[in-house]
Amino acid sequence: MGQGLLAPSFQRIDGALWCEGVPLQQLAESAGTPAYVYSSSSIRGQFARLSGALAAIPHRVHYAVKANGNLAILALLRSLGCDVDVVSGGELHRAFAAGFQADRTIFGGVGKTSAELAYALRNGVHVLSVESADELDIIDRLAGDLGVRARVGLRVNPEVTVESTHDYIKTGQKGDKFGIPVDQALTVATRAATLPNVALVAIGMHIGSQLTDLAAYGDGLVRLEELIVAVRSLGVSSLEYLDVGGGLFVPYADEDPADLERYVALIRPVVERTRLTLVVEPGRFLVAEAGVLVTRVLYRKRSGGRTLLVTDAGMNDLIRPSHYQAYHRIEAVDGIATRATFDVVGPICESGDFLAIGRELEDVSSGALLCVFTAGAYGYCMSSNYNARPRPAELMVDGDRWAVVSMRETCEDLVRLETATPTWRNG
Amino acid sequence: MGQGLLAPSFQRIDGALWCEGVPLQQLAESAGTPAYVYSSSSIRGQFARLSGALAAIPHRVHYAVKANGNLAILALLRSLGCDVDVVSGGELHRAFAAGFQADRTIFGGVGKTSAELAYALRNGVHVLSVESADELDIIDRLAGDLGVRARVGLRVNPEVTVESTHDYIKTGQKGDKFGIPVDQALTVATRAATLPNVALVAIGMHIGSQLTDLAAYGDGLVRLEELIVAVRSLGVSSLEYLDVGGGLFVPYADEDPADLERYVALIRPVVERTRLTLVVEPGRFLVAEAGVLVTRVLYRKRSGGRTLLVTDAGMNDLIRPSHYQAYHRIEAVDGIATRATFDVVGPICESGDFLAIGRELEDVSSGALLCVFTAGAYGYCMSSNYNARPRPAELMVDGDRWAVVSMRETCEDLVRLETATPTWRNG
Repeated sequence: MGQGLLAPSFQRIDGALWCEGVPLQQLAESAGTPAYVYSSSSIRGQFARLSGALAAIPHRVHYAVKANGNLAILALLRSLGCDVDVVSGGELHRAFAAGFQADRTIFGGVGKTSAELAYALRNGVHVLSVESADELDIIDRLAGDLGVRARVGLRVNPEVTVESTHDYIKTGQKGDKFGIPVDQALTVATRAATLPNVALVAIGMHIGSQLTDLAAYGDGLVRLEELIVAVRSLGVSSLEYLDVGGGLFVPYADEDPADLERYVALIRPVVERTRLTLVVEPGRFLVAEAGVLVTRVLYRKRSGGRTLLVTDAGMNDLIRPSHYQAYHRIEAVDGIATRATFDVVGPICESGDFLAIGRELEDVSSGALLCVFTAGAYGYCMSSNYNARPRPAELMVDGDRWAVVSMRETCEDLVRLETATPTWRNG
Repeated sequence: MGQGLLAPSFQRIDGALWCEGVPLQQLAESAGTPAYVYSSSSIRGQFARLSGALAAIPHRVHYAVKANGNLAILALLRSLGCDVDVVSGGELHRAFAAGFQADRTIFGGVGKTSAELAYALRNGVHVLSVESADELDIIDRLAGDLGVRARVGLRVNPEVTVESTHDYIKTGQKGDKFGIPVDQALTVATRAATLPNVALVAIGMHIGSQLTDLAAYGDGLVRLEELIVAVRSLGVSSLEYLDVGGGLFVPYADEDPADLERYVALIRPVVERTRLTLVVEPGRFLVAEAGVLVTRVLYRKRSGGRTLLVTDAGMNDLIRPSHYQAYHRIEAVDGIATRATFDVVGPICESGDFLAIGRELEDVSSGALLCVFTAGAYGYCMSSNYNARPRPAELMVDGDRWAVVSMRETCEDLVRLETATPTWRNG
């Protein structure tokens, strides 16, 4: 296991970066670049860490598939006893393709279509997490049509003030699109209790990602507990779960990791008082540090007093630096003692295509391999074909063995759904 | 043709929005939502407008495929006599798939790999636009290996001050990653003249997109002309083209359209003095206004004093509002007299997933169709599968007929390159 600046499961041996028992250089030569590389041991380690912290509480861990839906990662988590949280029909399809049974799935999301809800109900998902009164009515009607009882949870927006790293990943503040505003929640819960085809089994929240301070969690829990007490006082006895969502902090630079002890200490009394089973929905926490993006330097050039490294990975492969101004640590795969300051930029034709600006790292030349760390979450799943660039391969490492778990796209793949000669229909 | 707030080729008939001779509602019902809809007449009109403005100058129009690489759009432009500018092997593959001959292609881009350069050379692209001295040497070596003569252009960074709508789309300022810095250009041109396997046929620039003021164009042209004079004074007689790139402004709200007369007036004297053929590389200008994104409102909800419309199109379908804080005009497909103010948000699980914030539009309910205008450029080509969402269909309209020119992805498509059961290899 690496230490300090190295993520767990990535380490240097004789100056060269390895993922577990495999040199990154060998993976790049075998599978090409750019490529995402995932460490199984890192995923196992993070799942064990969280499960250990929660051991004294009745709980279920539902991995948030949106962080990284790769089938091999899903199958690995399944084998560890982890369940899943999905936010679309596509993610539910991924979960099933990775071998999950429906009773291990929670389906949330602010914009479920009727087709997605029907798909979920037909397959018997364990909990449908409801985000509005209108959605509750649609579910009741669809469940009635299908002759099933929908097990629903209410995702509440507790309207807490969230400290996080970027506005785009805060999701539990007043006016946000997510969840049922806390002042409408009891009304919706009451309605759920009267509808013939739904059973209200969960009350939950998800206040955001990369929470840098757990106070908002505590504030949200107070509001959830008040709501649970109020719902039960109406005679509702079907509640099974308290769902606190995700949001555990992952360090991208040299910040402290999430304080799981304090996290559990905040949650445990509420779980004990409500006598519910805890549901947690970690995404980034389980997979971010397990993944790196390996890319090759195509050109080193000077322009206007700056030194640029043009890499074969672009914003289409990893959009986080450009979209969220996110920091990702970058190191040369082959260690070099001397250092220099670079703009690390991609091949795409816009200035927004960069991995790092003004970054000090090893003084590399063209042809060198770079490792972009903490790329396991919101990396491949946000990738695109911008500039008609095929998406990279995804590799998984397990000890001293490795596998291609998602093949690199080809140029042919990119046009397979298109035609240059339209088959016209009359309007 | 529509007027005022309506883009050309989109108009209201009895209150309902039509694309040319087809109602958008009919397209949504036949092909589902979300869907991109492209008007052929708009593309024809913009190409005719630009060609007309340039009629008195020897010129070639090379469409910048990066704006929208849909094969049917490429084939339409080909049929009009338009050529192409590509920035990757994938885009060159698209051009060939749409029927372009190699002598109608220019291949530019800051990060071409050796494999992409060899692909271009083997197929005889008309001009390889070079962005660094290192790339020039690689091209010379590859051309020698293949026994061909590479026709190269130099993309110069004229280091002008660019006024544009977003930092991410400025590409001709000091320190940018693009092009050869103007103070190195003569050295690189001199080198090109001495290399055995290259012919220097073009000098060019591309200073950015959405230029709101043509002064930077003029400044850049002065520098290009100085360079052309200097290169010729070295005895280089192979120059054929002056390439001024793209950048023509497209109005997204109620701004004035690009002033083509002034644009041509700036360029024409330089073309005449240098006796070169002009190359222009418009992307957005030809296709942005031709495209709309049609999406259905899934939910209308109130939260914290705001009214939200949750649509079935998300940032994975159209990332421009979230990524560039871009404005896109939005109207209801069915006209309604009363208006209200909404946050128009997508179904994706992050607060950054929005189409418009605090936008006044028709007072619609769930189930309504919305039309997002000026979505023909940097729309579908930047789309992703974030949240495991299949990418939308693309439709083309031509008069009163229409066609699906790119099929909607399915959930099966999204996992076709993956495996849940890795085939391990030993490291």
